Amino acid sequence: MSELEAKVLPEATVARLTQYLRALNALESRGMERTSSGVLAKEAGVNPAILRKDLSWLGSYGTRGVGYVVRELSEHINNTLGLNRDWRVLILGAGNLGRALSGYAGFTTRGFKVRAILDVSPDLVGTDVGNLHVESRSDLAEVVRREEINIAVLAVPGDAAQDLIYELGELGVNSVLSFAPKPLVVPRGMNLRRVDLSTELQILAYLAVQP
Amino acid sequence: MSELEAKVLPEATVARLTQYLRALNALESRGMERTSSGVLAKEAGVNPAILRKDLSWLGSYGTRGVGYVVRELSEHINNTLGLNRDWRVLILGAGNLGRALSGYAGFTTRGFKVRAILDVSPDLVGTDVGNLHVESRSDLAEVVRREEINIAVLAVPGDAAQDLIYELGELGVNSVLSFAPKPLVVPRGMNLRRVDLSTELQILAYLAVQP
Repeated sequence: MSELEAKVLPEATVARLTQYLRALNALESRGMERTSSGVLAKEAGVNPAILRKDLSWLGSYGTRGVGYVVRELSEHINNTLGLNRDWRVLILGAGNLGRALSGYAGFTTRGFKVRAILDVSPDLVGTDVGNLHVESRSDLAEVVRREEINIAVLAVPGDAAQDLIYELGELGVNSVLSFAPKPLVVPRGMNLRRVDLSTELQILAYLAVQP
Repeated sequence: MSELEAKVLPEATVARLTQYLRALNALESRGMERTSSGVLAKEAGVNPAILRKDLSWLGSYGTRGVGYVVRELSEHINNTLGLNRDWRVLILGAGNLGRALSGYAGFTTRGFKVRAILDVSPDLVGTDVGNLHVESRSDLAEVVRREEINIAVLAVPGDAAQDLIYELGELGVNSVLSFAPKPLVVPRGMNLRRVDLSTELQILAYLAVQP
């Protein structure tokens, strides 16, 4: 087991594990205590063979003919993904995107809490976003310390992103999700994920012109 | 060439081609007419060996020791990705996310035009989002016809997404980008891409707990 757990999972597997987690939660909320790879795969919208392979990364967990105990599997995935920790999210940028993200249902799933939202604009600082007040960009260091932020989400224009990345790195915030449509230099030790929404549209365009 | 063009590119390659395109545009705007794979890779933030492999999918295009003609390569990628067409985007949902998407700089890159935005809420219908008026969800069929929509973006709650998917399929809109945090049944012939923002946070959490 310890050898298996030391392996780094393929990113696609990590993404699917989060889908299985949502599916398991849905099954649990319908009162199901056990499930099979077939049922779980259907609920998660994934091919059963792929699901079995993904779960095999976690160590042999299901029992042939008996299946999986919903709550056990769910906890096992949670532990593997680090979701049993407390993740304190800071959103940088209180424009439409930042506001949308702070209220995005998926961001309030277990483990993640949006603790603060900052902006440079004096027009936005002090306004309400859900149950948060927008704070000033210049208070970044203070907010990171006060809220013990460990994940930052960049919903700022491309030009503002790089400076923020360096500053976050210095403040010890080493997990960053960026919506800025720009390649960024990533400091050592930082995990940066970029979501580029226009890329998704371009992939759709490409798929649409295939014969 | 025709045999090469008939191949379906790996999705990761398509995503990177869009990055090369942005990098080429940046180089062109700085007055560069030729470039090398090294320069282009750096501008795009990609490993040069991967870039060369990606471009080899398009057919042998660079000349050893001479490199690439910026404008030619840019057009070639545009044609491959179907970006020389006119893409007319409909956004479904005029909440924070829909509003953010309609103004997202990446969505107004070449080829893509947000033509309309719809919502079910009487409070939102008739309000302005950028230079668009929010129209009513019940006018979906009319709007799709009037604006010749060929890509739809779902920024609606999970429960509303599936009905919309079916209706869009019947209306002939077969390219859909969904932000609904829910697996969806996809009609035959439709290309559906899902962006699940919470998955990105969960991947970050996973990466942060790795030794």
